[in-house]
Amino acid sequence: MITALAGGVGAARLLRGLVRVVPPAEVTAVVNTGDDTVLHGLVICPDLDTVTYTLAGMNDDIRGWGLAGESWTVMDTLDRLGGQTWFRLGDRDLATHLYRTQRLADGAPLSQVTREITAAVGVGARLLPMSDDPVRTRLTLAGGPEISFQEYFVGRRHAVAVESVRFEGADSCVPAPGVLDALAESDVVVICPSNPVVSIGPLLAVPGVAESLIRRRTRVVAVSPIVAGAALKGPADRLMTELGEEPSVVGVARMYAEVAGTLVIDESDAHLADDVAALGVRCIVAPTVMRDVEDAERLSSTVLDAVSGRIA
Amino acid sequence: MITALAGGVGAARLLRGLVRVVPPAEVTAVVNTGDDTVLHGLVICPDLDTVTYTLAGMNDDIRGWGLAGESWTVMDTLDRLGGQTWFRLGDRDLATHLYRTQRLADGAPLSQVTREITAAVGVGARLLPMSDDPVRTRLTLAGGPEISFQEYFVGRRHAVAVESVRFEGADSCVPAPGVLDALAESDVVVICPSNPVVSIGPLLAVPGVAESLIRRRTRVVAVSPIVAGAALKGPADRLMTELGEEPSVVGVARMYAEVAGTLVIDESDAHLADDVAALGVRCIVAPTVMRDVEDAERLSSTVLDAVSGRIA
Repeated sequence: MITALAGGVGAARLLRGLVRVVPPAEVTAVVNTGDDTVLHGLVICPDLDTVTYTLAGMNDDIRGWGLAGESWTVMDTLDRLGGQTWFRLGDRDLATHLYRTQRLADGAPLSQVTREITAAVGVGARLLPMSDDPVRTRLTLAGGPEISFQEYFVGRRHAVAVESVRFEGADSCVPAPGVLDALAESDVVVICPSNPVVSIGPLLAVPGVAESLIRRRTRVVAVSPIVAGAALKGPADRLMTELGEEPSVVGVARMYAEVAGTLVIDESDAHLADDVAALGVRCIVAPTVMRDVEDAERLSSTVLDAVSGRIA
Repeated sequence: MITALAGGVGAARLLRGLVRVVPPAEVTAVVNTGDDTVLHGLVICPDLDTVTYTLAGMNDDIRGWGLAGESWTVMDTLDRLGGQTWFRLGDRDLATHLYRTQRLADGAPLSQVTREITAAVGVGARLLPMSDDPVRTRLTLAGGPEISFQEYFVGRRHAVAVESVRFEGADSCVPAPGVLDALAESDVVVICPSNPVVSIGPLLAVPGVAESLIRRRTRVVAVSPIVAGAALKGPADRLMTELGEEPSVVGVARMYAEVAGTLVIDESDAHLADDVAALGVRCIVAPTVMRDVEDAERLSSTVLDAVSGRIA
């Protein structure tokens, strides 16, 4: 059994490779819900949907988010009404949000709704929200107000300096059913190449998750989302800098040192391998940029081999 | 100034004629919100939308509801997810519901949101929800449970016997801003040819509305939705029968006798004119079936002439 801690696009890409290396039924992805938001009355779970769509082969690889072959009739019409369209929701994507919102209103917990959606679109791996309780990532801007994650990420295109980050509701949330069991029963726990601050951060803030990783630290492998000093996508590098961490694989190793025994870094960062090791984190150098599913498959094998001992 | 009490399709058709006979800015439609519902987390106001779309010339005249040139991508996708699709919401129509739900969540009252939507699509008449407070039409089935209006109307296609009807929240609701003023300042109040039980019934249950009509009863003209013993559309005739009223223009006259001084009935019901008059309701016989906007224009003139005295 493999359990992955997952954010959005980077995690989805790695998971797409992982389910080709091991049977999908043996893979559990525990997904960040700190980015979740309510818009137009609809409950939107960006990371859950990104992972779902990608594993179902429905995602738009070129645009990098949402569904392939998507249409935009609702948003275009909403725009003419003068509605809020800064967060673009495609017509097919909206069906997911309508489904989820209705089922939550029916009283079904998010984990149950996620099971229903993934089953309907044919995802073989198990997807778990980190919690059925709401946890909301909030960012305080430098010298400014505190805003929601989506206002930061989509509304302001993460082009503003951040002073601090917190995960509202994390302290008192309960891990979704299956989360702690999945971690406890896993041969390998993978920390996907997601934003350490705002994607993996909320997951580690869920009571019991970090503690579980610490207990099985030698079987926890993280993949650095920072390559050659920059995030492949999104603001991870800038956020790390703004929050006082070095935007490099060494900074990532420092953030994960307590919970992960191994860090996989890209070949372009090979010269930093000794610095990572000096933090007490075993360092594996491999190609980590996933341009296609074959890259993802190779990286997945590297991650699994790291724990099975095939990589020294 | 003209104020119309309006339900859905029949009202929308008459109003389309009315705004060709008098300047749209002089027309206020107070619209039933007892049919409103929440689906998928979205606030849906079927009568407000039917009147809005029709006055904007955007309605689908052939299907009889929703928007012309509508597409169904969201519903088709929701269907594949196993979601609730018994209440069909087109893609363009959904934009209205997203807009409304977001604005209500922002704290805007329904009357304000209605003003915004009608302005955006170019409706010249003023549309007012009967109240900014929720009023919900509930029907108790014969020997069975109490259900919502939409479950009755759409879910069960009104093919079930009804024992009683109530308007939840009506007693304690406040008329929307402008409703009582519009009635008080009107030269003519028109009760549109809508279902007397479930469309006009909720409007008359709003505190102050029936009282206002009673005070200016000689200037209140109703158009019978029953023609030749049957409703042109929907279950008005069956509902009247089930609730103990004769499904005829005489039954309609009896239901409205207290609030309306005049009833316009169709030529096919001319033989019942004396029976209507015997109830103390002035009776005008005219063509009332609106096949096109010209029919609606003629009927509107008849209604206005009834009060201006040009029809004896």
